[in-house]
Amino acid sequence: MNVVPPALERLINDLNRLPGIGKKTATRLALYLLRHSAVEARNLSRDLAELHDSIKLCGNCFTFSETDPCPLCADSSRDAGLVCVVEEPADMMAVEKTGAFKGMYHILHGVLSPMDGIGPAEIKIDALLSRIDRQQIREVLIATSSTVPGEATAAYLLQRLQDKKVKITRLACGIPMGMDIKYADDMTLSRAIESRENTG
Amino acid sequence: MNVVPPALERLINDLNRLPGIGKKTATRLALYLLRHSAVEARNLSRDLAELHDSIKLCGNCFTFSETDPCPLCADSSRDAGLVCVVEEPADMMAVEKTGAFKGMYHILHGVLSPMDGIGPAEIKIDALLSRIDRQQIREVLIATSSTVPGEATAAYLLQRLQDKKVKITRLACGIPMGMDIKYADDMTLSRAIESRENTG
Repeated sequence: MNVVPPALERLINDLNRLPGIGKKTATRLALYLLRHSAVEARNLSRDLAELHDSIKLCGNCFTFSETDPCPLCADSSRDAGLVCVVEEPADMMAVEKTGAFKGMYHILHGVLSPMDGIGPAEIKIDALLSRIDRQQIREVLIATSSTVPGEATAAYLLQRLQDKKVKITRLACGIPMGMDIKYADDMTLSRAIESRENTG
Repeated sequence: MNVVPPALERLINDLNRLPGIGKKTATRLALYLLRHSAVEARNLSRDLAELHDSIKLCGNCFTFSETDPCPLCADSSRDAGLVCVVEEPADMMAVEKTGAFKGMYHILHGVLSPMDGIGPAEIKIDALLSRIDRQQIREVLIATSSTVPGEATAAYLLQRLQDKKVKITRLACGIPMGMDIKYADDMTLSRAIESRENTG
């Protein structure tokens, strides 16, 4: 006999659809929300309902924002001549958290992946090119992931940017901070040797 | 600069409050809900909002249910003379999933835990005793967890049930199915030896 009430079952199925949440975790979370204060469940419900109404894409950099332009694009203290190109808003958040970057961003919202039917038209590449034509951009820092699709996207961008009068840079690839060299994988170590820096 | 829009940040904080969901997982889930269809976020929102309105406790067995009595208590094909006492609705779901139990349930909603201020009055023990007086109950199967508070609760129940005319049983403790004996912990192996069964 199914002893899970339908309303609980629906919530479990909703949670189970989220990435990395299996049936058991979904059940545990749903029972937690049921057993604990109704306020917590209602707050989560309200914030979920408001999510898609409140947040849009910034028309300039395409990050998630409640305003257009986003607070960062509207900030005149940032260096508008330097644009960091990333795959996802989460990558932008990661770069911004370092505090090491003072320029602007451009979110592609994906990477080239012909197998999944994602070509240049599906991601914000044309918007980047027209942004370079319209705005006084001095340097484009390509910060796609160092995965196969990330590298392919970077190579394609490089080719499309060749006839624009901008300096093109990429994030340095090498040994992560604090890593023991003997545990680094071959690819990373090769890249670190190729990109060795002149220090003396 | 904080580049997370406030509406997204609120959702991340809500999710971060759930058990086992850290800040990174909460961010990943929130971004997934934002990036994917708004329908998914709205369904989850609606089901969360309905949760506490739809689900109450069954007045007889105290499980979560949309009806009172719950479908299981209302089912005349079940053996009403046999009651399985469990800690939480999740335990009842686990027992019911086996299909090996055809009786009724009684949910304690907790275990005795003096350190956390949970005494007999805080869990549904009196309700169980009055249920035994009112209904024709032949056997009480104590199915609390084999943890320290679970065992303490079972011992307390045993004492309170002594003057009632019911047979009292407990779940068998022993080696889990498929387990290699050499990897069983000492406590489990001792219990399995003590509770050895006569088979020949």
